[in-house]
Amino acid sequence: MNLDYIIPNPWSIIEEGFNPDQVKASESLFSIGNGAMGQRANFEETYSGPTFQGSYIAGVYYPDKTRVGWWKNGYPEYFAKVLNAPNWIGINVLVNNEQLDLFTCKSVKKFRRELNMKEGWLSRSFIATLQNDIEVEVFTKRFLSLENDEVGAIDFNIKPLNADAVITFQPYLDSGITNEDTNWDDKFWDTLNVSHENNQAFIQAKTMKTDFYTCTFMESQVFIDGKSVLIEPNIKADANLASFSYKHQVKQNETYSIHKFGGYLVDRNHSKNDFVKVAKSVLKEATETGFTELLNNQKMAWAKIWDMSDITIDGDVKAQQGIRFNIFHLNQTYLGTDATLNIGPKGFTGEKYGGSTYWDTEAYCIPFYMATKDQSVARTLLTYRYKHLDKAIENAQKLGFKNGAALYPMVTMNGEECHNEWEITFEEIHRNGAIAFAIFNYYRYTGDYSYIPEMGLEVLIGIARFWHQRATFSTDKNKYVILGVTGPNEYENNVNNNWYTNYIAQWCINYALENIDKVKEGFEDDYNRISGKTKISHEELAQWKKVADNMYFPYSEKHNVYLQQDGFLDKELITVEDLDTSQRPINQKWSWDRILRSPYIKQADTLQGMYFFEDQFTTEELERHFDFYEPFTVHESSLSPCVHSIQAAKLDRMDQAYTFYLRTSRLDLDDYNHEVHEGLHITSMAGTWMSIVEGFGGMRVKNDTLTFEPKIPEQWEGYSFKVNFRHQILKVSVNHNETHFELEGDTDLEIRVNDKLVTISPNNMVTV
Amino acid sequence: MNLDYIIPNPWSIIEEGFNPDQVKASESLFSIGNGAMGQRANFEETYSGPTFQGSYIAGVYYPDKTRVGWWKNGYPEYFAKVLNAPNWIGINVLVNNEQLDLFTCKSVKKFRRELNMKEGWLSRSFIATLQNDIEVEVFTKRFLSLENDEVGAIDFNIKPLNADAVITFQPYLDSGITNEDTNWDDKFWDTLNVSHENNQAFIQAKTMKTDFYTCTFMESQVFIDGKSVLIEPNIKADANLASFSYKHQVKQNETYSIHKFGGYLVDRNHSKNDFVKVAKSVLKEATETGFTELLNNQKMAWAKIWDMSDITIDGDVKAQQGIRFNIFHLNQTYLGTDATLNIGPKGFTGEKYGGSTYWDTEAYCIPFYMATKDQSVARTLLTYRYKHLDKAIENAQKLGFKNGAALYPMVTMNGEECHNEWEITFEEIHRNGAIAFAIFNYYRYTGDYSYIPEMGLEVLIGIARFWHQRATFSTDKNKYVILGVTGPNEYENNVNNNWYTNYIAQWCINYALENIDKVKEGFEDDYNRISGKTKISHEELAQWKKVADNMYFPYSEKHNVYLQQDGFLDKELITVEDLDTSQRPINQKWSWDRILRSPYIKQADTLQGMYFFEDQFTTEELERHFDFYEPFTVHESSLSPCVHSIQAAKLDRMDQAYTFYLRTSRLDLDDYNHEVHEGLHITSMAGTWMSIVEGFGGMRVKNDTLTFEPKIPEQWEGYSFKVNFRHQILKVSVNHNETHFELEGDTDLEIRVNDKLVTISPNNMVTV
Repeated sequence: MNLDYIIPNPWSIIEEGFNPDQVKASESLFSIGNGAMGQRANFEETYSGPTFQGSYIAGVYYPDKTRVGWWKNGYPEYFAKVLNAPNWIGINVLVNNEQLDLFTCKSVKKFRRELNMKEGWLSRSFIATLQNDIEVEVFTKRFLSLENDEVGAIDFNIKPLNADAVITFQPYLDSGITNEDTNWDDKFWDTLNVSHENNQAFIQAKTMKTDFYTCTFMESQVFIDGKSVLIEPNIKADANLASFSYKHQVKQNETYSIHKFGGYLVDRNHSKNDFVKVAKSVLKEATETGFTELLNNQKMAWAKIWDMSDITIDGDVKAQQGIRFNIFHLNQTYLGTDATLNIGPKGFTGEKYGGSTYWDTEAYCIPFYMATKDQSVARTLLTYRYKHLDKAIENAQKLGFKNGAALYPMVTMNGEECHNEWEITFEEIHRNGAIAFAIFNYYRYTGDYSYIPEMGLEVLIGIARFWHQRATFSTDKNKYVILGVTGPNEYENNVNNNWYTNYIAQWCINYALENIDKVKEGFEDDYNRISGKTKISHEELAQWKKVADNMYFPYSEKHNVYLQQDGFLDKELITVEDLDTSQRPINQKWSWDRILRSPYIKQADTLQGMYFFEDQFTTEELERHFDFYEPFTVHESSLSPCVHSIQAAKLDRMDQAYTFYLRTSRLDLDDYNHEVHEGLHITSMAGTWMSIVEGFGGMRVKNDTLTFEPKIPEQWEGYSFKVNFRHQILKVSVNHNETHFELEGDTDLEIRVNDKLVTISPNNMVTV
Repeated sequence: MNLDYIIPNPWSIIEEGFNPDQVKASESLFSIGNGAMGQRANFEETYSGPTFQGSYIAGVYYPDKTRVGWWKNGYPEYFAKVLNAPNWIGINVLVNNEQLDLFTCKSVKKFRRELNMKEGWLSRSFIATLQNDIEVEVFTKRFLSLENDEVGAIDFNIKPLNADAVITFQPYLDSGITNEDTNWDDKFWDTLNVSHENNQAFIQAKTMKTDFYTCTFMESQVFIDGKSVLIEPNIKADANLASFSYKHQVKQNETYSIHKFGGYLVDRNHSKNDFVKVAKSVLKEATETGFTELLNNQKMAWAKIWDMSDITIDGDVKAQQGIRFNIFHLNQTYLGTDATLNIGPKGFTGEKYGGSTYWDTEAYCIPFYMATKDQSVARTLLTYRYKHLDKAIENAQKLGFKNGAALYPMVTMNGEECHNEWEITFEEIHRNGAIAFAIFNYYRYTGDYSYIPEMGLEVLIGIARFWHQRATFSTDKNKYVILGVTGPNEYENNVNNNWYTNYIAQWCINYALENIDKVKEGFEDDYNRISGKTKISHEELAQWKKVADNMYFPYSEKHNVYLQQDGFLDKELITVEDLDTSQRPINQKWSWDRILRSPYIKQADTLQGMYFFEDQFTTEELERHFDFYEPFTVHESSLSPCVHSIQAAKLDRMDQAYTFYLRTSRLDLDDYNHEVHEGLHITSMAGTWMSIVEGFGGMRVKNDTLTFEPKIPEQWEGYSFKVNFRHQILKVSVNHNETHFELEGDTDLEIRVNDKLVTISPNNMVTV
């Protein structure tokens, strides 16, 4: 734990007291988003202290030219950067001609920031004394509308406390912005037009290279003590900026307010020729609705989201705050409404890593969206990969594969690989497995087989072909081996026979074979279409099977465990507990070679495999592997503690499960990994959800039946969650004595609780 | 083989006919140097076609900020770039106001370029028709003086053939130059002063960051038909340029000539305040001596070098040309006169790779310099590393080592590491072994033990400490293992128990222990100084010994060979012969992962170890390993074919030895690796020398005795070489029937030829 300033509260993230050292961290933590756009919690007014300015539009990126020291064949030419978009939230505030700037104020008192997760808004209040000794009280509130995801609204209020003062609001749009993350300091935006009309302004700009056309817009209204006043603004417009000045002589204790409405249009949704017309109509609707009513609508929209996705935890406010923080940010990042979008690792809270789609989507996020949204959302996420299949086949071709073998990229925006470390880009190929697993998982959970004949089978065939070709035969072992990979544990590079990779490779082939048969039997038209397109033959399938049937898995007889990879036992097996704390986090203290030859595991690897395929291992097997690997795991990946929490809960190690739960749910709030200033870890937040529902709740689907093995950490009085299972909504509430089930639906649902069949009737609480 | 345009000739490199596509390759091949400076064979006059301009000053470099995609702890901040220095060779030539430019001429006839290796000069002649239809005949000659290594001279002659013409020579100095190899397009040079006086000009410039102060200077004389003429030049001087224009109305068939003298002073050798004064005196001496006399001195200086280092090959002019090309460039690059310099991988012929010192120096170059120069030269090269010991200790500390463990850098200019790929920088640690081996090799060859107590032992202790700490104990194997390394074969990264690395690690420890004992017994004062400084203890030495005695070596019982590394036998063992030629060179065709999981070997690895430590293996063992590894070796490193040639000769496989010899000796002349335009492979040229002397000649030192096992490829009539062995010079001439030995020295020399003791008396040929 690295930070401890967030005030525990069940529904809000709260910071009190102004600390410039925390500004960047808070800018991440208090970020807001609505799926279509999002922004770091930058101040509206000028701030001259250290800050990381970021406002992002979903799906708008820039292919930054790859930068490496030593080029290697096969590296992608470009890296898709998350792109800081034109600023529409800015409101410079002048008090007697002095800029309000918290970094230079003589004093800042009663500073308070709140991210209200229940209602979906961000507020800030403080009393500041400027260099000119004017003391002002400020209150701001801001949100990005869920109802109309092209618009956001700001309510900014200022009151001079110790004198009358001339106060100027300068709301502006600015497209002269830069990126934190850039390889060559390229210019990313080309501003095409800056215009204004009445109280409205518009900046039309397109991204360089990708030619995403956007329109950033704003309109403002000003008030004295809540009453609208008409002030003729002084207007400034130049190549990248449109700024309006609303100047007013404000009396002591009078409140001067501005409502600023703004946002983005993108040419994905509108013709770029209509931008100004559409922006005017968006602004007209927003200003006519007004800030207060828009905010009411926002509360209602969030209430709807929470009704389905909320998890309650009683008796442990930090745990409660943690899980809601995770669920809130997931919903801010991705709502499943646009099939071209995906779930970037930092969402709208930072730029690091770039790209929007990692294996995190399939391995971590799909279960959350599957259970808390309509199942079409998960299907949309699967379809996203289906649409990238051709690119995945191209990507594999670049690396020497043929015959339709598909290797999905490690990082992508548009289906093309954009990562460029050989040990990741070329070798972390297990990502392919998660994409196949998600298809299986979707069908297992939703029962919707139709996706497989329609789209999934082609993906499965491409992936199976990849594994078939990637495995090679070892004469020495008389088995198929997979050499030179990086497993989920990225603290091992270029290893041979990573157990997880070999296992999922075998599984992918078998699952593809199984579904080829199923589609052949049940969906003749689809089968003919697919077999015509992919030209699969009996001979080829027989070859696949040979590889799957003869896959090698490293195993230690002595320890009775599968080995993470060949040679793991040659390491100096000193547990994390015995490692001097001054050496941690090792990724900040050690050179890479030292990390690689150590036994330390960044994130679940063998245990990740046993999580995916738990039905195929006994609890005793899981326990042996957990006991063997957990002591070497440093959890320096955000994706690690959630899986360990689930596995610990399964093994009835509730204290460990609880510790891991806190670590995953408060990873960013408490900044475990010393990096929250760079943005939040969005995708691992879905892992946090899993650690409650699948970990403590023990929820699984087995043989088409929803099953639970509820457990509860002793620190909690109770917890509850809801899942949408095959169009029926089941609420599960667990306390130390019993578990309650309530069903919203039309027909009975048969579930299994601790191996006992239980029938739940609609609107009738069942207690087990 | 990729190029085949160099005309075979025993003493010269000759190109005939002008081909713009070959310009860059020829600029590399015809490079000249004198140990202190060197330059690519750029034209004096303007050339607007594709060219790679390069003029380099030994020891003058620039720490370019490291560029990587993904930073890793321990990476060096800077990379020492070889730096293109101000241009002093430039002479623009205007013919009736049109620039002479071979790229734009209407025709170029009788183009001929010659690098005369015997005498050390570069010439060029051609007949060109300019756009203005004036036909001119041009002849140029240029050399960098060995006698005074701060100066070079150019003789440029032009004769209008079809009309009178106004011809202007514009000799210039230009410090506004750029680098081919740059990470951030930094400005590398800061020009401090441009001045001129009479026919002389001076540019004083310093390198950015490193503050190497230099003075580039020139003076010119012009002639008509060989007779000096006085022409008042028109002088232009600006921020980075000094240019003199000598304009003359030249009659048809009259020859207008310019002698330009120029060069560099560096503040390593002179106070920067005296630069202009010293430059004037250098120019005075050069102009007074005159071009012709300077050239005569150059011939004599080269005659002296060749007298000692020449290798003759009869009956195979390409082989003869190849070996002289190698010996010539080695002597152009490094002469052993300056203890701060070393042998850069591209010498003065290019910029790629940067740095000046690699393990190549110890593993390949020292044997050449030891046998063809005074033994002080080899000692100077060893001392260079001794002076870098503190930096090597610092370097190891950055990677987590302690207690004086030393890791020498992979690439360096000043002792600091400047390479930045983790798999090389952090893992290619075998380089440390070569540095210890060179100490052993120096003593073995020269018999000069004094270096060890004076300096070498401290280096050996630092290196032994490194290996002791770097090896870890594998409980599983009950042996010490060395995990996560890159061996000499860089087509394997992050492997465990690379046999070569483990072997040399063990050897280094044992050799350090042996010499600690020897110094203790024979050099008490040195021992006390060193043990006081290094604080070695009995306990520590016992720990070292434990590691050395229990080192693990991967071995295959089935194949009866040591394995290049753990897991080698899991690969698909398809030989190079069975690999489709369309796939080669694999480093230009395959992505890195594919190379890594293949069995293909870039350069001798296990076989390199058996070369260093041949006494410790039987010929049968060598043969088994050669038969096992050679078929997988692609020789995509310049350092590979020489070792294979030596080993093949040892195994009496003369055809193979000959093929490898041609490949190593004509690597650049025939451009085997498709990269000669980037510069030459200087350090591997010493390997070529070894392939004759140690390969065919079978020269070794065993028990203080020089031994030979002469062999000869059937393609040759005979060959001869000379070696300086312990201050006695022995000439060895081999033909198919016998070997002749001649001794230049005062006392008898006892040698061993094919295991027979032979006594050679001075000046008395002995035939065996």
